[in-house]
Amino acid sequence: MKQSQLFTKTRKEAPSDEVSKNAELLIRGGFINKEMAGVYSYLPLGLKVMKKIENIIREEMNAIGGQEIVMSSLQEKETWEPTNQWSDAEVDIWFKTKLKNDTELGLAVTHEAPITKMLKGFLNSYRDLPFSVYQFQTKFRNETRAKSGIMRTREFVMKDLYSFSKDEEQHLEFYEKCKQAYVNIFKRAGIGHLTYLTFASGGMFSKFSHEFQTITSAGEDIIYVDENKGIAINKEVYNDEVIESLGLSKESLVENKAVEVGNIFTLSTRFSDALDLTYQTEAGEKKSAFMGSYGIGPARLMGTVVEVLSDDKGIIWPESIAPFKVHLLSLGEDVEVIKSANEVYEELVKKNIEVLFDDRVGIMAGEKFADADLLGMPYRVVVSTRSLKENGVEVKKRTEEKGSVISREELIKVLTNKN
Amino acid sequence: MKQSQLFTKTRKEAPSDEVSKNAELLIRGGFINKEMAGVYSYLPLGLKVMKKIENIIREEMNAIGGQEIVMSSLQEKETWEPTNQWSDAEVDIWFKTKLKNDTELGLAVTHEAPITKMLKGFLNSYRDLPFSVYQFQTKFRNETRAKSGIMRTREFVMKDLYSFSKDEEQHLEFYEKCKQAYVNIFKRAGIGHLTYLTFASGGMFSKFSHEFQTITSAGEDIIYVDENKGIAINKEVYNDEVIESLGLSKESLVENKAVEVGNIFTLSTRFSDALDLTYQTEAGEKKSAFMGSYGIGPARLMGTVVEVLSDDKGIIWPESIAPFKVHLLSLGEDVEVIKSANEVYEELVKKNIEVLFDDRVGIMAGEKFADADLLGMPYRVVVSTRSLKENGVEVKKRTEEKGSVISREELIKVLTNKN
Repeated sequence: MKQSQLFTKTRKEAPSDEVSKNAELLIRGGFINKEMAGVYSYLPLGLKVMKKIENIIREEMNAIGGQEIVMSSLQEKETWEPTNQWSDAEVDIWFKTKLKNDTELGLAVTHEAPITKMLKGFLNSYRDLPFSVYQFQTKFRNETRAKSGIMRTREFVMKDLYSFSKDEEQHLEFYEKCKQAYVNIFKRAGIGHLTYLTFASGGMFSKFSHEFQTITSAGEDIIYVDENKGIAINKEVYNDEVIESLGLSKESLVENKAVEVGNIFTLSTRFSDALDLTYQTEAGEKKSAFMGSYGIGPARLMGTVVEVLSDDKGIIWPESIAPFKVHLLSLGEDVEVIKSANEVYEELVKKNIEVLFDDRVGIMAGEKFADADLLGMPYRVVVSTRSLKENGVEVKKRTEEKGSVISREELIKVLTNKN
Repeated sequence: MKQSQLFTKTRKEAPSDEVSKNAELLIRGGFINKEMAGVYSYLPLGLKVMKKIENIIREEMNAIGGQEIVMSSLQEKETWEPTNQWSDAEVDIWFKTKLKNDTELGLAVTHEAPITKMLKGFLNSYRDLPFSVYQFQTKFRNETRAKSGIMRTREFVMKDLYSFSKDEEQHLEFYEKCKQAYVNIFKRAGIGHLTYLTFASGGMFSKFSHEFQTITSAGEDIIYVDENKGIAINKEVYNDEVIESLGLSKESLVENKAVEVGNIFTLSTRFSDALDLTYQTEAGEKKSAFMGSYGIGPARLMGTVVEVLSDDKGIIWPESIAPFKVHLLSLGEDVEVIKSANEVYEELVKKNIEVLFDDRVGIMAGEKFADADLLGMPYRVVVSTRSLKENGVEVKKRTEEKGSVISREELIKVLTNKN
């Protein structure tokens, strides 16, 4: 894409009311726009990142047999009453609204109850189990405070998967597969090295739930990490008994601030009992389906990547989720430079290498470099009178201090071999 | 995909409260689920159709330079006050809700105002114009009645594109391009032959707006069609003066019921004046951007396809938006049949031909045939003892009465040549 045609522009100043680094950098880069506190729009560059994150998640969910659907955001009171989750006293982040005839509706905080209700129409026999269903769907949460940029917002897309099994044994088999899929997702998104499987409160139905926590000073949680074993304990369940039961020792656990980028937990039959989602067993008996719930917020993941992979100049996108792989810069008004840069652009496009081409005229080199650092594409490729003198282009990774001039043929090799 | 693993099942009975054909067939086929009146979820088969429709639209919007974004559904009162569109007296389909601190919010009915406001941060000069921005985004409309299945709902994804130009001349250039893109979309989605460019009320700022109306008895609009010229007039502006001004004659115009599957209209400077979206002209003057708005509801398009392309047995999906190109049926419990069907399935998957494989055991042939007709994939391929006797598979298009037995090699040719 040609940058001259991109309607967004970078900004030098962060908005004064943004305190989080992720929102500051993403707004300055034109990735997102703040609509109000805790509510953001995704602009072309930001949406590209979101879609890449969603696709990584989708691939991993499909690989474990997840079937994709999309449920509605509007929800009925009757759906949430059987589990006592309708009243604001029980769930204090509802946004509620009304039909013309005064019927109260809620905006989806989550979907356990509606999905359980919907599946009553399809689940009959033990032969139908196990299966899992997921969606990328907008959740609305009436948060009192919203100061973490896109990491905690009042409206956001969430990938929520729900699993349905015959019994706990069948459930745990899927649960372990999904846990591994989550490990894959965070690794592929570039934050695997900072993300720990974390034991957290299991609620009523299992000893623990599992969170995936990424270490960052921007996090709202406290976790205790055993670096060698690659696992952690959330402060909420951090005590001698738990430490011992996990075979850990206090000495090897280090306190860190972290953000929860994913969570998986066993629901057991809480929803299937309440909403009567049953199946016929081999023996012909009626039994409630055994459920699990598995969430990831793509925007929180995106915000976390910005928090942990950025420097004082801007964002450093991992290749897997960068809006473009290459940021091609044409410097100066020299006719030969412009011609050569256009040729490089056409060639990259032809080779299906995603490239943002800074073809803007009348913009100083320093400003183009600053924009490239702020926007954070993995490769910066510069065409200038200087690079042409050496018969090539200057290529530099966002993570490198200095670039080097290589031929255009070599550039294609560099960009196609590494993926 | 193997049908034995699909969590949805077909139903013989339509829900008693559904009066529209599209909802009836789509619910019976397990494409969608009714959450409440006017609110539907999209299940695996239905979501596949929606995504294909969205991708056709996306390709056509990208081809005319549209830049994709996603704005929020939560909207502020202040955004809609300058154009007098906040009060329920002016816009009577708002869903409204509240933040914890009692601040009123609205759920997006549309996005003209928020997008105009957002662009104030990016538009400076005439050099930035023209450009266009679009999204696939959820709209909420508090309709009093909702009886047309997925053709008119209270919550739905809409593709809305907004164009920004220097002046009316530049605007009209884009407007014509978008009109053609819309023609392409309906053609590609399989309803081009029933869809007419229709002159409708232009509101305050232009003589006409343009609707794309598809002829169907399920439609809520009345249009007058000139079949030869391929255009129509909406009843709301149907009078002698308009007929004459369009160079049409009453004799050649035929009254039809139709559904509006798309609309494009000139907004002029209504929003840019009210919300101060200006740019600097060549002469250094400040001028309001000239705007247009262009909508398509993918779900309404999907519902319309079902209304107009179905028979008494079920849906007849056009290949371009079918969930799968092929419905492969394995009949009976014969070991050779099962083996052969599995081989065909593997081969189609390997060749990237989208196939739903009815591998279910214990289901009678008649039921499998009925399901195939209801679900409506373009090609039905049957492996049975009878087809094996003739050393092949029976292939039949959904639109054909009778199939024919061809070899497996020939099947691949048939399925890969025609697209």
